[in-house]
Amino acid sequence: MTGDGRARPAAGDGRPQGADRASFRPRLYAPGPVAVPPSVLEALARPVVHHRTDAFRATFVRVRAALAEVLEVAGDEVMLLTGSGTTAFEAALVAAVPRGAHVLALRGGKFGDRWAAMARAFGYRVSEHDVAWGRAFDVDGLRVRLADVGQPDAVTLVHSETSTGVLHDVAALAEAVRTHAPDALVLVDAVTSLAAAELRPRAWGLDAVVAGSQKGVMLPPGLGFAWLSERAWARGEEAGRRVPAYTLDLHRERPRQRAGDSGTTPATSLVVAAEVALGLLLAEGLPARRQALGRRNRALLAAGRALGAEPFAERASPAVAAMTTPEGLAAPAVVRALADRGVRIAGGQDHLASRLIRPSLLGHGDDYDAVVLAAALEDAWRDLGRTVASGAAVAAAMAVLGS
Amino acid sequence: MTGDGRARPAAGDGRPQGADRASFRPRLYAPGPVAVPPSVLEALARPVVHHRTDAFRATFVRVRAALAEVLEVAGDEVMLLTGSGTTAFEAALVAAVPRGAHVLALRGGKFGDRWAAMARAFGYRVSEHDVAWGRAFDVDGLRVRLADVGQPDAVTLVHSETSTGVLHDVAALAEAVRTHAPDALVLVDAVTSLAAAELRPRAWGLDAVVAGSQKGVMLPPGLGFAWLSERAWARGEEAGRRVPAYTLDLHRERPRQRAGDSGTTPATSLVVAAEVALGLLLAEGLPARRQALGRRNRALLAAGRALGAEPFAERASPAVAAMTTPEGLAAPAVVRALADRGVRIAGGQDHLASRLIRPSLLGHGDDYDAVVLAAALEDAWRDLGRTVASGAAVAAAMAVLGS
Repeated sequence: MTGDGRARPAAGDGRPQGADRASFRPRLYAPGPVAVPPSVLEALARPVVHHRTDAFRATFVRVRAALAEVLEVAGDEVMLLTGSGTTAFEAALVAAVPRGAHVLALRGGKFGDRWAAMARAFGYRVSEHDVAWGRAFDVDGLRVRLADVGQPDAVTLVHSETSTGVLHDVAALAEAVRTHAPDALVLVDAVTSLAAAELRPRAWGLDAVVAGSQKGVMLPPGLGFAWLSERAWARGEEAGRRVPAYTLDLHRERPRQRAGDSGTTPATSLVVAAEVALGLLLAEGLPARRQALGRRNRALLAAGRALGAEPFAERASPAVAAMTTPEGLAAPAVVRALADRGVRIAGGQDHLASRLIRPSLLGHGDDYDAVVLAAALEDAWRDLGRTVASGAAVAAAMAVLGS
Repeated sequence: MTGDGRARPAAGDGRPQGADRASFRPRLYAPGPVAVPPSVLEALARPVVHHRTDAFRATFVRVRAALAEVLEVAGDEVMLLTGSGTTAFEAALVAAVPRGAHVLALRGGKFGDRWAAMARAFGYRVSEHDVAWGRAFDVDGLRVRLADVGQPDAVTLVHSETSTGVLHDVAALAEAVRTHAPDALVLVDAVTSLAAAELRPRAWGLDAVVAGSQKGVMLPPGLGFAWLSERAWARGEEAGRRVPAYTLDLHRERPRQRAGDSGTTPATSLVVAAEVALGLLLAEGLPARRQALGRRNRALLAAGRALGAEPFAERASPAVAAMTTPEGLAAPAVVRALADRGVRIAGGQDHLASRLIRPSLLGHGDDYDAVVLAAALEDAWRDLGRTVASGAAVAAAMAVLGS
């Protein structure tokens, strides 16, 4: 028993030893939903406004303009949808790719799989190009596959594959598509890469980029964003060849959103909060933000290495530190031990559930959050019966942070 | 000039005379989005939680159970979607009605039109049964139309048609459908009637009921709700005859939501706030709530009548007081005059824009909000050059309120 009369569990079962569960405050260190700045939370709590007012329309227009800056397509239109990143991907897919077209889906994780499954659900002819989870797609492999499948009408790519922690080289892969299948639209899932990794939709020749609110933009979930190239808009406008859509029909929605309106009532509170969140992001500056997120993620990977955890991704995304736990240390036990200390990280999905952990500092935070997470990882290791020199992981993290 | 040096506009142009614009606080008296209780706003501002946690799954399950109580289908499943009431209608339609089926859409306003347009967008064969905006559907007319169009596979009904203020007699209309087209699914838009008007999905033999968060439930917009009858679920499960869907595929979503999960990240902050809002509603009790909303709406109609405005709806919904302004008094001018006093109501849509006003007390409030709205209407009339005895509309409202 502890001094306050509560039972203290025995060592090695993953419960905190040095302190009591109730003494920790909650920390959200998952690759989305992420921790949100206090001023964004404050904006959510403001009295509800009506969407058919000049004031709200002006907010909506400003949010779209700010999103275009964050997506590095300043001046272009970004479609704002109530839903998730997946909602936005669906809307972009059916808006740009004609019914029955041939879609090549690059699959190297859960989200790559999702776009293939979605395309199939809408009746597209789907081919796949796969790499093992944790590996990055290479240009040569894609070239071979493109030659194999003929000329697809569209190619789906995941920029930051959250399930594996891999940042795929979208610039090089898109270039390969443009070279070997020039008519294929390149549709990119930037859900966790937005505001974390460099993304140049125009320079890289992309045709659709989609993201969601609950990742690098630092909002709660509930909004999806989609940008389409002029080529993609035009392709989707070919009469009589559209996949049926109504609430997610971007062609119908486009002229409305230009005027600050939308076909159905948008999530007004999230849109109001988006203006605050995007303002913070643009004030910090995208290059500074990306640099900070990259540094913190490298610090997490260094902390893990000091504990015998290996980076899982061949090419690490700055949005998530995917790591394989040491032999004999079950990832779900680590996730639970951290949760007992108030720290919420993501574990592995599907066949990676037993050995993968995925902490992330994509949300609101600073370098000291990397220090906290390194310390918590050390503690979790100890809780699970491993011997770790005090501060070993923290020191590794701090060395990367430049402390 | 006023004492503080700001210009005071001349009488008759719709600007406040007796007071300055800045001296009013904002009041949202529109039929959605509506004013939200402070404790719901507080819940929105709580730190973001992760959706893949036991705590959030438990919240999600409790919210679905509370929604089932509010929808009067306690114990049944209610599907919770990120989006609007329209999102929920789309999901219910494509989940229940097989591809290419025959849909009879009852149209008596903007939302009746919407379901016809949506059904057409998804390739259904659509017939219409129309009444003039402001009129209520009668059972005899529906019977004749049903005989005319043959046996439809589904019938779409709007319970409270927000664009006209009509509460359609869903019980009687659904009974007529069950009698004369027993296999037709009855799909009901209860977006503004939920928690405002009596709604008995089982007793009335309905097959789908959909609603949204920003109306009688008193949340911000961003969530849609859908209940389906067992018959509707089964009809939609017939293999190979589904309209393609992915994010809005309720059949895929159903087993997940039972476990507190969803296919894509839900709007967690809104779900957390929904528990608070639904708790308030159920604590007040649906009968008491409906009675209060009905009383306040009748008070608004009485206030309007005292000012020469006539109720527009043949059968008034408790969710909105649709009124035709007196000859020569333009509805948009009234809306602007009220806005100058901080009071936001809805005007008329489409061909009703010039003469219809639609104040509503569907949101968080009490009987004194009806008094305020009556007073503001009087003031707006005066601002627009009409002579009104001080307190005439307020007295009419108070008489209805029982003061």
